[in-house]
Amino acid sequence: MQHPANPIPVGILGATGTVGQRFITLLSAHPWFVIHKLGASPRSAGKTYKNAVNWKQSTPIPHAVREIIVQECKAELFAECKVIFSGLDADAAGDVEQAFRAAELAVFSNAKNYRRDPHVPLIVPLVNPSHLSIIPQQQSLCSPPLKKGFIVTNANCSTTGYIIPLAALEKSFGPIEAVLVTTMQAISGAGYPGVASLDILDNIIPHISGEEEKIEWETLKILGGVAEDDQGVKSFDMHSKHPLRVSAACNRVPVIDGHTECVSVRFARRPPPSPQQVREAMVAFTPDATALGCPSSPRHAISVHEEPDRPQPRLDRYYQDGAGVSVGRVRQCPVLDIKFVVLANNVSIGAATSSIINAEVAVLKNVIQVDE
Amino acid sequence: MQHPANPIPVGILGATGTVGQRFITLLSAHPWFVIHKLGASPRSAGKTYKNAVNWKQSTPIPHAVREIIVQECKAELFAECKVIFSGLDADAAGDVEQAFRAAELAVFSNAKNYRRDPHVPLIVPLVNPSHLSIIPQQQSLCSPPLKKGFIVTNANCSTTGYIIPLAALEKSFGPIEAVLVTTMQAISGAGYPGVASLDILDNIIPHISGEEEKIEWETLKILGGVAEDDQGVKSFDMHSKHPLRVSAACNRVPVIDGHTECVSVRFARRPPPSPQQVREAMVAFTPDATALGCPSSPRHAISVHEEPDRPQPRLDRYYQDGAGVSVGRVRQCPVLDIKFVVLANNVSIGAATSSIINAEVAVLKNVIQVDE
Amino acid sequence: MQHPANPIPVGILGATGTVGQRFITLLSAHPWFVIHKLGASPRSAGKTYKNAVNWKQSTPIPHAVREIIVQECKAELFAECKVIFSGLDADAAGDVEQAFRAAELAVFSNAKNYRRDPHVPLIVPLVNPSHLSIIPQQQSLCSPPLKKGFIVTNANCSTTGYIIPLAALEKSFGPIEAVLVTTMQAISGAGYPGVASLDILDNIIPHISGEEEKIEWETLKILGGVAEDDQGVKSFDMHSKHPLRVSAACNRVPVIDGHTECVSVRFARRPPPSPQQVREAMVAFTPDATALGCPSSPRHAISVHEEPDRPQPRLDRYYQDGAGVSVGRVRQCPVLDIKFVVLANNVSIGAATSSIINAEVAVLKNVIQVDE
Amino acid sequence: MQHPANPIPVGILGATGTVGQRFITLLSAHPWFVIHKLGASPRSAGKTYKNAVNWKQSTPIPHAVREIIVQECKAELFAECKVIFSGLDADAAGDVEQAFRAAELAVFSNAKNYRRDPHVPLIVPLVNPSHLSIIPQQQSLCSPPLKKGFIVTNANCSTTGYIIPLAALEKSFGPIEAVLVTTMQAISGAGYPGVASLDILDNIIPHISGEEEKIEWETLKILGGVAEDDQGVKSFDMHSKHPLRVSAACNRVPVIDGHTECVSVRFARRPPPSPQQVREAMVAFTPDATALGCPSSPRHAISVHEEPDRPQPRLDRYYQDGAGVSVGRVRQCPVLDIKFVVLANNVSIGAATSSIINAEVAVLKNVIQVDE
Repeated sequence: MQHPANPIPVGILGATGTVGQRFITLLSAHPWFVIHKLGASPRSAGKTYKNAVNWKQSTPIPHAVREIIVQECKAELFAECKVIFSGLDADAAGDVEQAFRAAELAVFSNAKNYRRDPHVPLIVPLVNPSHLSIIPQQQSLCSPPLKKGFIVTNANCSTTGYIIPLAALEKSFGPIEAVLVTTMQAISGAGYPGVASLDILDNIIPHISGEEEKIEWETLKILGGVAEDDQGVKSFDMHSKHPLRVSAACNRVPVIDGHTECVSVRFARRPPPSPQQVREAMVAFTPDATALGCPSSPRHAISVHEEPDRPQPRLDRYYQDGAGVSVGRVRQCPVLDIKFVVLANNVSIGAATSSIINAEVAVLKNVIQVDE
Repeated sequence: MQHPANPIPVGILGATGTVGQRFITLLSAHPWFVIHKLGASPRSAGKTYKNAVNWKQSTPIPHAVREIIVQECKAELFAECKVIFSGLDADAAGDVEQAFRAAELAVFSNAKNYRRDPHVPLIVPLVNPSHLSIIPQQQSLCSPPLKKGFIVTNANCSTTGYIIPLAALEKSFGPIEAVLVTTMQAISGAGYPGVASLDILDNIIPHISGEEEKIEWETLKILGGVAEDDQGVKSFDMHSKHPLRVSAACNRVPVIDGHTECVSVRFARRPPPSPQQVREAMVAFTPDATALGCPSSPRHAISVHEEPDRPQPRLDRYYQDGAGVSVGRVRQCPVLDIKFVVLANNVSIGAATSSIINAEVAVLKNVIQVDE
Repeated sequence: MQHPANPIPVGILGATGTVGQRFITLLSAHPWFVIHKLGASPRSAGKTYKNAVNWKQSTPIPHAVREIIVQECKAELFAECKVIFSGLDADAAGDVEQAFRAAELAVFSNAKNYRRDPHVPLIVPLVNPSHLSIIPQQQSLCSPPLKKGFIVTNANCSTTGYIIPLAALEKSFGPIEAVLVTTMQAISGAGYPGVASLDILDNIIPHISGEEEKIEWETLKILGGVAEDDQGVKSFDMHSKHPLRVSAACNRVPVIDGHTECVSVRFARRPPPSPQQVREAMVAFTPDATALGCPSSPRHAISVHEEPDRPQPRLDRYYQDGAGVSVGRVRQCPVLDIKFVVLANNVSIGAATSSIINAEVAVLKNVIQVDE
Repeated sequence: MQHPANPIPVGILGATGTVGQRFITLLSAHPWFVIHKLGASPRSAGKTYKNAVNWKQSTPIPHAVREIIVQECKAELFAECKVIFSGLDADAAGDVEQAFRAAELAVFSNAKNYRRDPHVPLIVPLVNPSHLSIIPQQQSLCSPPLKKGFIVTNANCSTTGYIIPLAALEKSFGPIEAVLVTTMQAISGAGYPGVASLDILDNIIPHISGEEEKIEWETLKILGGVAEDDQGVKSFDMHSKHPLRVSAACNRVPVIDGHTECVSVRFARRPPPSPQQVREAMVAFTPDATALGCPSSPRHAISVHEEPDRPQPRLDRYYQDGAGVSVGRVRQCPVLDIKFVVLANNVSIGAATSSIINAEVAVLKNVIQVDE
């Protein structure tokens, strides 16, 4: 559990896309990871990064990557990378990530393809890094069995935001029975070009394809534990000992970055905690990733606001460089028990930052051998 | 229940404000009502309307009112008006509306001041115009008792939108036990200047002062009945026979007009209706005001969308000239029974249009004597 | 120059696109034209219009067209149409419009393809309908020569807005020598999906591909006359007797509909007219199309505002149903002579409305034989 | 011209306002200046800063100022401050700044009140810091004459942005004869609450009160020199040797931060420079403040973009932490000589950053004695 002695070479797949640009921005100043290879579509391969990309970040392209020649996403070209970050679109991610894993590479993916795989951990790093324990089983079930290659996914951006306070609540007060969440999601969650301006200016779109199902399903996998049967076979228990009902309503709103979510929860425990107890539990919540010393993990995972009109995306999305979440308006819910608002930066903790912290945890827990 | 034979002179209080401008726009083409007097603050009094107002509508000031001299809001100046529409702010509405009622004027108010008065009906015209039956009692309790003066209020804009489909559901399926509603409310709901642009561009404000309490309370008054005790004393029963729990979470969003609301409901009846039954009940819902023949009442109260991404404020807020509401995404709720999205035009049915239909009902039911 | 006695069947090409939807909305209530055929891509052909279209207008699909079966854009399928309106994209318009003309159909096109053709009139109907006089020459030069088929184009949306007041100024004060125009153009000008929301929310894009060249060139063709040489050969004189320099700077802004343009002009005449004279000339300007009695032509072409902060797109874009333009802030320019702001509805007079008025003029001038 | 040895205590007037918040954010990490006193209205005085302010920045209130007790803006309370930054509104700035100067304090003001004073320098720090030479005369003309007290103003935010490239052009190519500038200004330029959201969402306001006059006048004072007559009396020459005509058209647009300006210029020199020469001159431009070593001065004052669609406010406003400006689309102007687009961060170089660099220059030039 020591910090690595040497720079760790990493590769980024989908490097020219929205998530890829975010990986590059974040990793260009990372204390351990050094960008070594960039992968993108054949159309971009062979160009310098600065010529291949349609850069959309508000900080310039980091100097260290401007002249890197973009590669096709072929595993043999990334062999020296100890860590692969994948910002690939779902239509490409399935085959490419599998091929990279088969080539004994450690893949941390933001894509949805393997989230429901029963041997792939779905990790929100501030919540369930312990699910990395499934990796040996994932490796042994590959054919041929793998020694170093694996896939770890992070969650959908809208799941990530609200599940961090839920984890804090379950840690303090035991199982949650029901959650009703209404999201107001930023346009950046849809990538580029993503949402047409004619669809969202002066408008709300009360639907995001597949999003509600993702929240309702991913929540169970992430908050549930890893069960082990008599033969030592592990599986995700999907919160099955205390069934949890999740109802999500997802909306796209004219906000650039930052998903705002209105959450109501019902606890199993009677009487339920008071709003003040809930606030205190959230403030006190320290994720394992932070305790481990992950450099990208926020010092404070949850900022709890007392002001009645916070959190707001424009004011709070950069809290802890986008790695923490902001909660406000904790109050009683006349229908369930407690309701509150959560704001999470969908392009940071909701995407690239999660993958990066997941990789940091994997390094610190020696799931990845970096100093061999 | 006949249409009036002669034009009905009406007065508008708060005529230069946001709601007042909307009253003027709507009434300038009304088949019965003729704008006769305009009232505003002493600052505006004595000026022509076109000089007094900072007009913010996308259609020009109607010719018929441009040269009307604005009056102070003194009842004696409005004596010939058969109907008074009040778009006054809450800080002025209390005293002024009471004085107008005392002067035997029929006041239809958009202000919140008398909504909780136990003798003032709070009417969403597509839902509970039957509450007009309390008016004789309201008149008899004034001192001195009144013959013609009364106050009728309409509901808060965010209550109005979602209560129309709730009424349709209760009509078809009996009592609702619980409702959880998350609103995404347009900036026009806050009046002018209202929300600062720095607060709402690229942002969400997850709080509107007093709004959640209004929704939670008004819903009970509107959906409840009028009870009568042994002495014939009437009171609003606040849905007391079948207690209804309402939980609201209100947000301001960068949308100009049109409140979008995500609603989950639990019915008393087991098993609950299916989504398809719910859709059919909403389509079939015909408000009393429409049946009565009110000219401003929408022919179809609720438009039910099959497309997965509707209703949207920019596309649907002008449905039935803003007098109808649009519902979409009717589906099962894993926590309560049914969830759906409703879109209502907050400046039309959510404000001025409601007052106008209320007055139309009052005319058709002879609560106002117009042809004497 | 009489109004037509019978309904005139028309066809719309590109009927499912943004401009096509606008044609349908406008024509569904037209006093002369009746939508008879709808053409779109092979992908849409064979479907009912309501199933083929992704409708984005704020009024519903007109009932009369919902069940019309969409056709491929083949001229033989549109033979009975007296008028063809083309909302095709530039990549399809070139071949299709030529084929329709060759089939003796009268094509009024919103596409850019033939605007620079030396025999095709480029007509802003409130400015230069006299350019229809080139049509016999256009027909005679086709091979084989045509009797009834021709193409008329309307101008780019950003040209259309500012050229209407320029025409009013030249009519009153003689030639303009120089114009400098900076545009702030609505997103609807780019069609659908058009501008990505990530590119325009909280942003300005100071570039629209090809737009400045269009304005600078089209202005000369439209404001110039039709010259005739000794052999009676006609040509567009491109304002050549009084050379006019035009400099445009085009910007995309987060506005849905309505192009705002800041214009500075220098007149040939010394001394130049005063701001007040300019205002009066604009108010007095009556386009030929209005004088002719075209039903879609605005009664007042130019609304001149006295308020210092008008015109504004949200408040003024529906002036005369979008067929008129609004001017404000007429004042002296310290560098050229006079500066002002103009606002034009790019989807109305800037697109479909122009094509429709052009067709109305052609009917009234018997360029199209409708009652044969 | 050495860096100061000790921390320099500074005071901020108008500390709770928009500009004041920006001063605090910038100064909390300043290498020389230490926030010592905060001044605001009597309403705020006596409260801790965190309780007095309605904080609207996207980074939290700096820890060092959260508990500072806000003072009234009385000079005797700020006596130990070597530098006073004023973010006061114009209605308060006149009297307060004069009183502070009279108390021998060095005032760097963002307010407009003294910009036209013939003895107060109006300094854009990347353009004309040499105008500090007027200060001894300013001091000698006060009654009683002052030793240390003075006022320096910075320019209006819309002037500041476009005058930096103009200064670069005059430095390389000699006098400019005419400039035509059309601005698209961010809402933050109007302070808080400033522009109502109903006025700017989906809209443009083609007018900002007094703004065009400020640009047209301030440009002459800033780009002109300091003349000295036979008696040694100094005055600002207002570019009088080479009269410069400036025409501005100002618009408010729905952008949060960053003023975009479309500029056309005509040079005195014939032939004028080519676009490529203009680009090179801008890239090469090194402001005196940077050469002097001011810590807040940008290393590169002007970033010249080659991409056709830049600069854009959302992507470029943080260039050099908002202290530099971005230019793009340098091309020939068919009416004047050269046109281009400039983007400047109105809350940074357009406001607080300018005051701070001005103070840094004053320290390095010993106009302020800091180490006594």
